[in-house]
Amino acid sequence: MSLLVVGSVALDSVETPFGRADDVLGGSATFFSASASHLAPVKVVGIVGSDYPFDELKRTFANRPVDLAGIEHANGSSFRWRGRYRHDLNVAETLETHLGVFSNFAPKIPASFRKTPYVFLGNIDPRLQLDVLSQVEKPKLVVCDTMNFWIESRRQDLINLLGHVDAITLNDAEARQLTETNNLVKAARWIMAKGPRFVIIKKGENGALMFTKDGVFLAPAYPLEEVFDPTGAGDSFAGGFMGYIARSGDTSESNLRRAVIYGSVMGSFAVEQFSVKRLLSVTPQEIATRVAEFRKLVAFEDILA
Amino acid sequence: MSLLVVGSVALDSVETPFGRADDVLGGSATFFSASASHLAPVKVVGIVGSDYPFDELKRTFANRPVDLAGIEHANGSSFRWRGRYRHDLNVAETLETHLGVFSNFAPKIPASFRKTPYVFLGNIDPRLQLDVLSQVEKPKLVVCDTMNFWIESRRQDLINLLGHVDAITLNDAEARQLTETNNLVKAARWIMAKGPRFVIIKKGENGALMFTKDGVFLAPAYPLEEVFDPTGAGDSFAGGFMGYIARSGDTSESNLRRAVIYGSVMGSFAVEQFSVKRLLSVTPQEIATRVAEFRKLVAFEDILA
Repeated sequence: MSLLVVGSVALDSVETPFGRADDVLGGSATFFSASASHLAPVKVVGIVGSDYPFDELKRTFANRPVDLAGIEHANGSSFRWRGRYRHDLNVAETLETHLGVFSNFAPKIPASFRKTPYVFLGNIDPRLQLDVLSQVEKPKLVVCDTMNFWIESRRQDLINLLGHVDAITLNDAEARQLTETNNLVKAARWIMAKGPRFVIIKKGENGALMFTKDGVFLAPAYPLEEVFDPTGAGDSFAGGFMGYIARSGDTSESNLRRAVIYGSVMGSFAVEQFSVKRLLSVTPQEIATRVAEFRKLVAFEDILA
Repeated sequence: MSLLVVGSVALDSVETPFGRADDVLGGSATFFSASASHLAPVKVVGIVGSDYPFDELKRTFANRPVDLAGIEHANGSSFRWRGRYRHDLNVAETLETHLGVFSNFAPKIPASFRKTPYVFLGNIDPRLQLDVLSQVEKPKLVVCDTMNFWIESRRQDLINLLGHVDAITLNDAEARQLTETNNLVKAARWIMAKGPRFVIIKKGENGALMFTKDGVFLAPAYPLEEVFDPTGAGDSFAGGFMGYIARSGDTSESNLRRAVIYGSVMGSFAVEQFSVKRLLSVTPQEIATRVAEFRKLVAFEDILA
C-alpha cells in the first residue's frame, strides 16, 4: 500500500568535519521519500521555488516509486538550510535558514492522493498538518513529526493536532520541551494522554524508544564508525518506519517493532553520505544485512538462574 | 567463585529533586559489593577513617557474602562526597569532595584474598590499581574502572594500566576524553589496541555498549519512570556484571553479554532509592523479572523480506 508525505523539499548546504556540500537535495519530504521508497510507493506533497533543480529531483527518483505530482512550483526562491556539524555530530548548528516559498506553503493534496492509506505529516506548522488531515479520506495511520520551533511558537496548535494523529515522532529534547517533563517515560505518557496511541522518541546515536499502551520498545542505533553527515537521519528513520508499515499493512505491536528497526536501519544508512546519496545507492541485500546486524547487536541468550 | 573489589568506602550526602540524604553509605566498593553479592561472594579492600560508622556497614552486609576484612581503619576522617542532581539526573554536580584518609590509601591485599579469581579495580589512582595487580595471583579476569580526574592527572599511568587488565568500564565522556576521539567505535578500538580484550562504555539512561573482538553488544537502560538517585549506578552495573561472571565462571562472548544485562539490571535497581537501600532490598525474583523485562524491551520477531 502507498504512503503520502507532506513536508519540505529543500536545498541543503552542510559542513561536517569530513567535507562540505552546497545546495544539495534535502528537506524532510525528500529524505523520507528516498528512504520509504525502498519499501512502498510514496506520494509527495511539497513546494519548490523557481530556482529549484527539479529535473535533478526527478532524475534522482526516476527509478523509484516516488510520485512528485503533488509538488507545487511557486515563483520565488526555494527553502534553503545551511548548517554545520562540529566534532559532536549529534548537534547541528544552523547557520542560515531561508524559507523562501516555503513560508507561504499551503499544502494542497491532489485528488489522486486523497485516499492514500498511510500518511506522514513532516515537520511543518501544526496548523498546516491539521489542514492536510481535512483533505485526506480515512487514512489507516497518520504519524506526525515536529520540532522545537513549533513547540515554542505553535504549542496549542500542536497539542490540538495530537488529538487527530495516531502517533508522533520527535527527539528526546523535543519530547522534554513539549511535555515540560524530564523523564521520557512520563513524557510519552503525557503525549499519549492527548491522543496518539504510540510515541516514538528519537535519540540520535542512542537509538529510539517506542512507547505504546503495551509497553516500551528500544531500538538501538547502529554503532557506525563513520558518521559522515547526520542531516536527514530523523526523516529517513520515519521513511523506513512508515515504509515498512505500508508494505505490510499491519499496525500490530509486533509489526510496529519491526518497523522501528527498519526506521533505524534506514537512518543508519542516511548518515553515511551527504544528502540522499546513500539512501539511493543502498540495495535490498544491504538493508537485509543491516537488519540482521541490528538483531545481533542486542541479542543475548537465555539466562538461567 | 569469588570476587575481589578495591575501591572507595565513603559517606555520601546527596540532594536530588526528590529528597536528600546525609552521610549515607557510599563509595565504589560499597555499591559494587551491594550489587555483586547477589550473585557471588565479595572480598572488599578499602580504607575508612576513625569517624566511619563501620558497625552500620557491618550490619548492612551481615546477611550477605561480603568479607570486610580487607578494609583498613586509619586515623583521620573518612572519604566524603557531597553532590546534587537537578532535573537532568544524568549530570551530577559535585559540591564537595573530602578525601580524608583516602588520600593516603595504599591498598594492601590480605593474604587470604590474593587468590581471588575475579578482580574489579574500582575508580582509584591507576598507579594503585596497578599495584593491586602485583599483589594478586593469576586472576582469571581483571576489570578496571576510571574517571575524568585520572584521565587528566594520570593519563600515562592509566594507559600503562590498560596493558595489564582484561577490560575497562568507563562512561562515554570518559572514553572520548581518554582516546581524544568522538566516535565511540573508534574510541573502543583505540582502548583495545592498548591491551584490554573488551571495553564497556556506560551511557547512563542510554544503556551500555560492550566492544569485543567479535563485535558490539548494546544493552538498553531500563526506562524507569522514577530515577530517585543516580549515585552509584556505574559501580552497581560493574557489580552485577562481575558478579554474574564470577557466579558462572565463564568469560565467553555470549556469557559476557548476559553479564552486561545483569549489570544493567542491578544499575537500574540502584537508582530507585538513596545509597545502597534498593540494592539490599531487591529479591532474586525481582532480579529475574527485570532480566525478562530487558529481554522484552529489545525483542523483535523475525522480519521477512
